[in-house]
Amino acid sequence: MNSNQYNQGLDKNQANYVPLSPLTFIKRAAYVYPEKTAVVYGVNRYTWKEVYDRACCLASALQIHGIREGDTVSIMGYNTHETYEAHFGIPMAGGVIHAINTRLDAQNIAFMMDHAQTKVLLTDTLAAPIMKKALSLVKEKPLVIDIIDANEETGESLGNMNYEDFISQGDPNFKWQLPSDEWNAIALNYTSGTTGNPKGVVYHHRGAYLNALGNLIAWEMPKHPVYLWTLPMFHCNGWCFTWALAAVGAKSVCLKQVKVATIYDLIEKEGVTHYCGAPIVHSLIANAPKELQVKKKHLIKGMVAGAPPSAAVLDTMAKKGFEITHVYGLTETYGPATICDWNDSWNKLPTAEQAEIKALQGVTLQVSEDLIVAHPETLEPVPFDGETMGEVLFRGNNTMKGYLKNRSENEKAFKGGWFHSGDLAVIHSNGYIQLKDRSKDIIISGGENISSIEIESAIFKHPAVMDAAVVAKPDKKWGEIPCAFVTLKEGMEVSQQELVDFVRSKIAHFKAPKTIVFGRLPKTSTGKTQKFVLRERARNME
Amino acid sequence: MNSNQYNQGLDKNQANYVPLSPLTFIKRAAYVYPEKTAVVYGVNRYTWKEVYDRACCLASALQIHGIREGDTVSIMGYNTHETYEAHFGIPMAGGVIHAINTRLDAQNIAFMMDHAQTKVLLTDTLAAPIMKKALSLVKEKPLVIDIIDANEETGESLGNMNYEDFISQGDPNFKWQLPSDEWNAIALNYTSGTTGNPKGVVYHHRGAYLNALGNLIAWEMPKHPVYLWTLPMFHCNGWCFTWALAAVGAKSVCLKQVKVATIYDLIEKEGVTHYCGAPIVHSLIANAPKELQVKKKHLIKGMVAGAPPSAAVLDTMAKKGFEITHVYGLTETYGPATICDWNDSWNKLPTAEQAEIKALQGVTLQVSEDLIVAHPETLEPVPFDGETMGEVLFRGNNTMKGYLKNRSENEKAFKGGWFHSGDLAVIHSNGYIQLKDRSKDIIISGGENISSIEIESAIFKHPAVMDAAVVAKPDKKWGEIPCAFVTLKEGMEVSQQELVDFVRSKIAHFKAPKTIVFGRLPKTSTGKTQKFVLRERARNME
Repeated sequence: MNSNQYNQGLDKNQANYVPLSPLTFIKRAAYVYPEKTAVVYGVNRYTWKEVYDRACCLASALQIHGIREGDTVSIMGYNTHETYEAHFGIPMAGGVIHAINTRLDAQNIAFMMDHAQTKVLLTDTLAAPIMKKALSLVKEKPLVIDIIDANEETGESLGNMNYEDFISQGDPNFKWQLPSDEWNAIALNYTSGTTGNPKGVVYHHRGAYLNALGNLIAWEMPKHPVYLWTLPMFHCNGWCFTWALAAVGAKSVCLKQVKVATIYDLIEKEGVTHYCGAPIVHSLIANAPKELQVKKKHLIKGMVAGAPPSAAVLDTMAKKGFEITHVYGLTETYGPATICDWNDSWNKLPTAEQAEIKALQGVTLQVSEDLIVAHPETLEPVPFDGETMGEVLFRGNNTMKGYLKNRSENEKAFKGGWFHSGDLAVIHSNGYIQLKDRSKDIIISGGENISSIEIESAIFKHPAVMDAAVVAKPDKKWGEIPCAFVTLKEGMEVSQQELVDFVRSKIAHFKAPKTIVFGRLPKTSTGKTQKFVLRERARNME
Repeated sequence: MNSNQYNQGLDKNQANYVPLSPLTFIKRAAYVYPEKTAVVYGVNRYTWKEVYDRACCLASALQIHGIREGDTVSIMGYNTHETYEAHFGIPMAGGVIHAINTRLDAQNIAFMMDHAQTKVLLTDTLAAPIMKKALSLVKEKPLVIDIIDANEETGESLGNMNYEDFISQGDPNFKWQLPSDEWNAIALNYTSGTTGNPKGVVYHHRGAYLNALGNLIAWEMPKHPVYLWTLPMFHCNGWCFTWALAAVGAKSVCLKQVKVATIYDLIEKEGVTHYCGAPIVHSLIANAPKELQVKKKHLIKGMVAGAPPSAAVLDTMAKKGFEITHVYGLTETYGPATICDWNDSWNKLPTAEQAEIKALQGVTLQVSEDLIVAHPETLEPVPFDGETMGEVLFRGNNTMKGYLKNRSENEKAFKGGWFHSGDLAVIHSNGYIQLKDRSKDIIISGGENISSIEIESAIFKHPAVMDAAVVAKPDKKWGEIPCAFVTLKEGMEVSQQELVDFVRSKIAHFKAPKTIVFGRLPKTSTGKTQKFVLRERARNME
């Protein structure tokens, strides 16, 4: 387009083009809100100036120890100020933060560190038993720095230096650089693959920056929110809230373990306004013992993802003064990519109907660009009929850079110019999507597709049910039949037959589970039910 | 960096890289909030679906009439729904929107249209007299489309078609494309240069997108605000709020002329929550006749730029339930680039001290990246002493793409990798900047730099003063001396000597004006005092 006058002599220069990076947020926070509290963890309280200085020290120390652009720094960290700082300090050194899921086993961790070519490992001594084993398995041993918790008894030190000594080698005035390119990697997050090796999802600075802003706008987050870290920071870098909170000068309230008494205590003491978590976190808060309650009344906003919140939980939460927003995303989309964007007019609907709507995964965030529900091969979008299932496909700047060193999975994931989520959904007449299943969780019975989520939703409506999951059980006659695993609320009872009848009164009879197994459900570290374990169990039933 | 594993096989593709553009905001608004009111102008009320469809029709019609990527479409429009739609419809066609300042003269307008190579002109018939003359002067006559106001008597039609007929040629399902590159131009805004020809400031899609999000976050704008268009849309595209409002599904309340009764009426009727404007707009609201008041009490947030709001106005506004935020920027920075980011702890200070702080131009927006106050040649930053003056230099993605076809000005503007604002400021110990003057407005008296703004602030403290401006007056002995032009409040009186004495009691004696002239001040279309006119007057005094 040589004739376009707007492209002549109007090139990028240092003054008008700066790579997008969430690192600018912490620089600004330290400058504008130096005295405001940034992170609280037990006895540890740091202002934005202090967190920034500590992050600079970490970056500086990492460079002293050889970290350069594109080097991986792994952290086995809980929700403490060290993990928070690392989200800035590591990329300030040019490094890529690999936050390890704290509930993984040693084999998996060793695989990831080898695959990521970890140069430095920061590790909380609470995880020493598992990390000691992981380190014995890795091919190339990284520099190991121990995080010593000032708030509780600590475990064995595995490295030669502790974190505080390490960062004290660094310079708080370290002249860190923005990434040379906004497409540079900032983080690596492994998906907990249920089959095969975990895949390393790579985030870039541009995406982290945009998803952070996207969260703030979609959730209408004001300046200086007080954010409770019920969501692990290792989970998509806390859905990018690690970075978003710096943009608005938030106070991060850390907690190492999700315990309901601690949650209520911190809400009260620190004036928590926002938190995120899997459904289990919200149930925990909703079903807390009566003596636990928020005395100072103020609106607390919770964000839930992983599964739709149940009507009962939503109702209880509303009465307790909590406002719950349902979002959906994957590790590959930097966490939340859709939101059940609430329409005021729905406030007039009966509570049950509101819950039905709130269960929808909704629409794109402002920064998510594009989403279709379509046939995974033809890319033909499904009609907006709330019936026809298709795969959820994403396109946008908060879709991952790709899987690290995994050409074949990248080709599959990005086929046809869309990111293939592997989630099956319908799209309602108002354009809101509703997940029906993971591709692999769908139950095919007598040639009919049955959504395991639809059955689970019906089961959840029974007042005695605390938790439920439905998987396919091989069947000679039907091919597959639905098999339900159910946890009942304490002190409540219901028979298998009663529950089957109840479900049949709610959905098509052929969809009702033939078998119901009562007991606790196996969970992943992020609170998701491990369906592959249940499928295995169902397969082995007589 | 061939060894960086994060740069291998992880390139941009259609799924993970989408050019940033505010056009995605209106697409989402139409999808998520189809029934919500988007724009109100008198009898005209449109939902987001309707505004989107109309913008698509406009884009489609423009393409039918030959508009392609990089073509200029000029609009002589007031704050009406047509001007709002054009901010989306023109770039959807690949065009660049050139919104003309409605108070310019025909010569200037003709110069701009020639310089911009305008292909299509949309023009409100209210401006017919001036535009008829401008069109008689342009070298290449564009296609002219008349905007006919449904709310008031209309003027002469200059084109062959009216706007409604024009867009009815278009297709509401028009398949518009995002820009091929986020660096493509989206808008052209001429600065009202006081000497020489106006310069055409070019905005790109990336900057418009980011500044829109930046406004929302810095101003903590929630979903569905009700925005009153007291700021002209032609002014930096309404400081990028044209686009920002689409991201949050706002309701735009349009008004063609800023009249205080209309403002109060619309606040009441439409439930206005936000508005922007030059200081004069806020004074107008503050000093409204007693019978005008907001009955339904709700917080109304106003944003002011152009000059610091006076303590008196701030005080009155606070009592009336308005919360004023002071921002600063230039056409070259897409409007607001800094904000007086308010610290809660300042709420405890006496009102007068709060006003002093609120008068500061403050700190960067979250998206503004970098700002220094420095020596314009050496780029040496000034100390944070609140005393030493330097030039405000910007660096960020919301710094213009450049001046259109103006190599020498671009070189000057971007010298040393910083955008040179031409504004002189000091930086306080807390890092907040305070403008002292335009480079050209500084008064050099007896070798001392005197800030005209400092003198004006002192004058403004006098209760009888409504408006004031200070310029340099040539003086044989001192080189220059300060000369003040003052407008008094209706029914109030103060003598020249009284006012000089008053100012001397506030600031260093040598800074007090030697001459004070009472009367109305000449204003630009955006409410700024035309200091060059006053300088001319001062020069010609006895």
